[in-house]
Amino acid sequence: MSGSTFNTFFKITTWGESHGKALGVVIDGCPAGLPLDEDDIQIYLNRRKPGQSKISTPRKEDDAVEILSGTFEGKTTGTPISLIVRNTSQRSHDYSEIASYYRPGHADYTFDRKYGFRDYRGGGRSSGRETIGRVAAGAIAAKLLKELGIEILTYTKAIGPITADMNAFDRDAIASTPTCMPDYEASRKAEEYLAQCMENMDSAGGIIECRINGVPAGIGEPVFEKLDANLAKAIMSIGAVKAFEIGDGCKVSTANGSSNNDSFISENGRISKKTNHAGGILGGISDGSEIILRAYVKPTPSIFSEQETVNTEGENIRIRIKGRHDPIIVPRAVVVVEAMAALTLADAMIGNMSSRISYLKDFYT
Amino acid sequence: MSGSTFNTFFKITTWGESHGKALGVVIDGCPAGLPLDEDDIQIYLNRRKPGQSKISTPRKEDDAVEILSGTFEGKTTGTPISLIVRNTSQRSHDYSEIASYYRPGHADYTFDRKYGFRDYRGGGRSSGRETIGRVAAGAIAAKLLKELGIEILTYTKAIGPITADMNAFDRDAIASTPTCMPDYEASRKAEEYLAQCMENMDSAGGIIECRINGVPAGIGEPVFEKLDANLAKAIMSIGAVKAFEIGDGCKVSTANGSSNNDSFISENGRISKKTNHAGGILGGISDGSEIILRAYVKPTPSIFSEQETVNTEGENIRIRIKGRHDPIIVPRAVVVVEAMAALTLADAMIGNMSSRISYLKDFYT
Amino acid sequence: MSGSTFNTFFKITTWGESHGKALGVVIDGCPAGLPLDEDDIQIYLNRRKPGQSKISTPRKEDDAVEILSGTFEGKTTGTPISLIVRNTSQRSHDYSEIASYYRPGHADYTFDRKYGFRDYRGGGRSSGRETIGRVAAGAIAAKLLKELGIEILTYTKAIGPITADMNAFDRDAIASTPTCMPDYEASRKAEEYLAQCMENMDSAGGIIECRINGVPAGIGEPVFEKLDANLAKAIMSIGAVKAFEIGDGCKVSTANGSSNNDSFISENGRISKKTNHAGGILGGISDGSEIILRAYVKPTPSIFSEQETVNTEGENIRIRIKGRHDPIIVPRAVVVVEAMAALTLADAMIGNMSSRISYLKDFYT
Amino acid sequence: MSGSTFNTFFKITTWGESHGKALGVVIDGCPAGLPLDEDDIQIYLNRRKPGQSKISTPRKEDDAVEILSGTFEGKTTGTPISLIVRNTSQRSHDYSEIASYYRPGHADYTFDRKYGFRDYRGGGRSSGRETIGRVAAGAIAAKLLKELGIEILTYTKAIGPITADMNAFDRDAIASTPTCMPDYEASRKAEEYLAQCMENMDSAGGIIECRINGVPAGIGEPVFEKLDANLAKAIMSIGAVKAFEIGDGCKVSTANGSSNNDSFISENGRISKKTNHAGGILGGISDGSEIILRAYVKPTPSIFSEQETVNTEGENIRIRIKGRHDPIIVPRAVVVVEAMAALTLADAMIGNMSSRISYLKDFYT
Repeated sequence: MSGSTFNTFFKITTWGESHGKALGVVIDGCPAGLPLDEDDIQIYLNRRKPGQSKISTPRKEDDAVEILSGTFEGKTTGTPISLIVRNTSQRSHDYSEIASYYRPGHADYTFDRKYGFRDYRGGGRSSGRETIGRVAAGAIAAKLLKELGIEILTYTKAIGPITADMNAFDRDAIASTPTCMPDYEASRKAEEYLAQCMENMDSAGGIIECRINGVPAGIGEPVFEKLDANLAKAIMSIGAVKAFEIGDGCKVSTANGSSNNDSFISENGRISKKTNHAGGILGGISDGSEIILRAYVKPTPSIFSEQETVNTEGENIRIRIKGRHDPIIVPRAVVVVEAMAALTLADAMIGNMSSRISYLKDFYT
Repeated sequence: MSGSTFNTFFKITTWGESHGKALGVVIDGCPAGLPLDEDDIQIYLNRRKPGQSKISTPRKEDDAVEILSGTFEGKTTGTPISLIVRNTSQRSHDYSEIASYYRPGHADYTFDRKYGFRDYRGGGRSSGRETIGRVAAGAIAAKLLKELGIEILTYTKAIGPITADMNAFDRDAIASTPTCMPDYEASRKAEEYLAQCMENMDSAGGIIECRINGVPAGIGEPVFEKLDANLAKAIMSIGAVKAFEIGDGCKVSTANGSSNNDSFISENGRISKKTNHAGGILGGISDGSEIILRAYVKPTPSIFSEQETVNTEGENIRIRIKGRHDPIIVPRAVVVVEAMAALTLADAMIGNMSSRISYLKDFYT
Repeated sequence: MSGSTFNTFFKITTWGESHGKALGVVIDGCPAGLPLDEDDIQIYLNRRKPGQSKISTPRKEDDAVEILSGTFEGKTTGTPISLIVRNTSQRSHDYSEIASYYRPGHADYTFDRKYGFRDYRGGGRSSGRETIGRVAAGAIAAKLLKELGIEILTYTKAIGPITADMNAFDRDAIASTPTCMPDYEASRKAEEYLAQCMENMDSAGGIIECRINGVPAGIGEPVFEKLDANLAKAIMSIGAVKAFEIGDGCKVSTANGSSNNDSFISENGRISKKTNHAGGILGGISDGSEIILRAYVKPTPSIFSEQETVNTEGENIRIRIKGRHDPIIVPRAVVVVEAMAALTLADAMIGNMSSRISYLKDFYT
Repeated sequence: MSGSTFNTFFKITTWGESHGKALGVVIDGCPAGLPLDEDDIQIYLNRRKPGQSKISTPRKEDDAVEILSGTFEGKTTGTPISLIVRNTSQRSHDYSEIASYYRPGHADYTFDRKYGFRDYRGGGRSSGRETIGRVAAGAIAAKLLKELGIEILTYTKAIGPITADMNAFDRDAIASTPTCMPDYEASRKAEEYLAQCMENMDSAGGIIECRINGVPAGIGEPVFEKLDANLAKAIMSIGAVKAFEIGDGCKVSTANGSSNNDSFISENGRISKKTNHAGGILGGISDGSEIILRAYVKPTPSIFSEQETVNTEGENIRIRIKGRHDPIIVPRAVVVVEAMAALTLADAMIGNMSSRISYLKDFYT
């Protein structure tokens, strides 16, 4: 069945493999009249570019986006927006080795079992390059949200054992460190940790945190299209993410009701919460507080040390993976998490517009 | 918009409020010919019944299910299966107090903001009774999966700080302890912990673990309908769940690739993995290993100690919640997690049947 | 796969068989705050009741609807509305004959081939009673549309060779004639024609016309969710409908552009069309004119004269169908067409609310 | 909302405007292993090319398709197939006139009302060029169906008052006449009729007929995803189609049950029907007979004679449309009807694979 379409209203369909001719996305359901040009999208794509520091692969990927449809005179027309990024730097080299076995931690084996064969060049559709379509579409969703007063901030919370100190939070650090951490000191330590990983021919995992501000109360559709449920799906659909939290997340399991409940408080006629253990969502519906979520990302599975595996003939073998691979996925995945959160929220914002008959009457009569 | 339908093929639509006339579910897309009677479903519903121990509410809920359509001569017909559970024990009493304010940790405030008003009797649609439809439908999904050799085992992994010892794993304990823990000793300690919570007019959270065996490799649809992404959505859509893990989950963030990668191994022509850090899913597709997931559940928000909140007039007030409330949600949510996992998997199993053209040719020619 | 869910936002799921315990529908996505009680629905159900005249089956069906969820204090709450109609008059009698062969013009054969067996009592899910869910849901959609200034008028345009004279159009006749024709004279002739059909142990077909007024321009989503495409699906999904027209319909094939084009005209700043060959839809989007559609309904397949067919053993046999069967489907299907049109339109009205970014900004900021 | 995605399993998303950079389609859910190259698609696209005869516009459109993703070593991989057709011949000329008014019979007015403005160059998204994506995707669906023994034959049944004589049916004529009629004599007369239309600065409509052979009994999902309902939606979503028939279509309204019912007959253990008034579908499910459908197509709205309309300032004006326009849409739409039928059927064939639990057990155990 089809699995490359996401959302109901602000619907996106991504396509493309690591070493195919191009990758892209079609965004269908974007409201008409949103100012949009390629720069709006490119700025997001650049955030996932490799080759920008020593903790990222030296591969050069240009990833220049082209808008093929859906805009006219600088604005969206309400018709599908087709975006394409040509694959330019994928060198044709010998893939016979990688084709012959199943890399541990990768989807080689599962793709073969599902489809009967696979495009093994660079991981094919299971490559991280698949996220280009997500990020390009997410850039548009983020722009739409910005028009509605919503802002998303995403950063690396931790790399391996090194966690950013929220008391030292510095927004500038997110964009200017190679780790995308909001804490220069933690970032420096994380770089050291990663250097050590590389020396060990090993890789590291980490945590990405995403904070969304400006979401009005009322967004999300019980009981299956709850905002947190859809955010979970969005984030868990990103390769390498193995856990998802909203608000206090895992910590709630050891909390008590008296400490975990957030009291409501009224100030000057505006209702808010004294604390935000819930992470901005109650009963699957936004409560007007900041939405906070976290993604736990596994270490890059492509490591240079020797590994045991099985080849396509079913023989046990030992392999050493070659090529250019980031020792960590996290910094480049930060913008992917942000994109998926933006896409999910854009959809939910539209979905909420028909929640009351009075809204329809105001709109139509 | 609509939010009460789940899945694409084995599609369910739940309905009903805590204190309405009834609750129920329509299952549409269940294959024809599956033997099914009310006992198959009742056995699951009984697992979520309250009033069974001192850590569960003394409310009496009969929750007797009736099949209204979709079966004939003891088998499913391929047409929609409608299930209903009448609300019998909901006493009509005075809800004016609860109607007048927003309970902390509940969806009172968000429902009011979304819909303009709410059915405040017992929480309405945001009540835990909403899960009756999920569990009833999940019972059928589980039966279907059993026919395909798939078995799901779900239990309480932890209650507050008390964690079940997997070395002391005893399957019988799951059904016979009030905690649904697979470890009698841990269960006993957890009961003590809960007794203390109750004495403190407080509540506790916990962790539910779900293990699925017998799933063939190849199930799940990249890149948005990945099996883990859909499991995440399924589980996170359950009220009170604040975090979701697959396999090693959060722990991957501090792991290294060398330890987190699962080596493939071939034995007698059968490929498996030496370890299962991935929790049975690679690239969003099942790899043939056991699928392991965990849900982190927050403490019951209805606590008897005094809390601060806001009333519907926007005034800051102090409240004490009355009524009968479990000090913990976890044991009764175990079967809900199992139901949602079964539903997600049933859908994915059907979705995979068209993954190769050779499958269609075998089927049709 | 699932086939009993319709629409995207104002989503309905119908269930139930002719001789099961009950039939019903869940409406999910109805905006909160719509006044609704059982009478609103019953009035529509009564229009499809049999036993009201000599051209309709003497079967007595009470079809009393009960609202099980989704309303509170007389208004919809935004949560799923579950409606049930108990089957009360289905007498248990001997179905062994009908179980043994395939009735011509019915779905007996195709259900058996699809599902491996069928609920043969009264046609099971393929019975006309299946439309109870559609009509009950359609009543709510129609009520919602009425709040938005939209009115739907549906009637019998023709029965066999007898066509209503639109110059003699009398709205009262629709409700007061057994044919639901808007022309007393034509209705009288049609009754005579049907009497003749019955004498011949035969049945007749006819045409249903539906006119929708008050729809603003702009409703419908190119290129696959066009308003006319979705109306076509809605109407063609009704059993016995074999053709669908919008506006001039079939006649366009022999028209010329000069006569078929509708000129736009501006009067007092309001743009309309001089003619309405298009039937109110251009490019799949409503143009503000009356929407006109027609359904062509086949003769009742259950006739009392002898027919040739095959039994489930694969033997050629001759049969005579017994029981109580209308000689014509049309009058009772009028309200079904109206219901399906209302449901389709309600969905499209909601879908259009996000067509411009300015609408989202007006709504949220 | 999004409207450019079609189907549930074999899902397509089309994009592109008449005068944008390119048009295309993403096909998601195509089973892996289907041999596919650009020629398979180009052969279908060539059938909708203009400039091939005097009854078609002298515009030159190359419409060369490029596969951007989803195939590897000549076979589909199960991942999304992205197809692109660059717009090469759209000359940049002055569109200020067409931008200033609403062409009768076109979607100019409705697009403006829906989206607030429109891409007026060549009709934008409402242009017939939008069908490029449908046809390209349909070519793949048709190839898939061919592997399953299903063949679709589509042709012009009538042009204006000239109807092809089915007794003179000549399959070769479909491909070799400019009208795509299966009757050389009728085609010649239709060409004369069209020449007369052009002389009158007018245009003509017609009828397209589509016959599908080899569909097994059992395809289609009651009660809303019936095969005929989905075919109706598919065909009615094509611009200019104003009526849809299955089997005897409109004629059923004047038929009697005794003549309209198709008797079943058993020959050598194979059950078929003596006649096929039903057009191969009973109760929304294929019955194993030939599926027959018809689309009624309106005359080209772009005519060269003077017309009345309104400009965007709301003034009544008289216009003369310039440019290159076919006097008839029908011959070029034949392949579009075929494509939409193929897409609908491919989806339904996949959807049926889970109709019985025994099918799942055969597949998985």
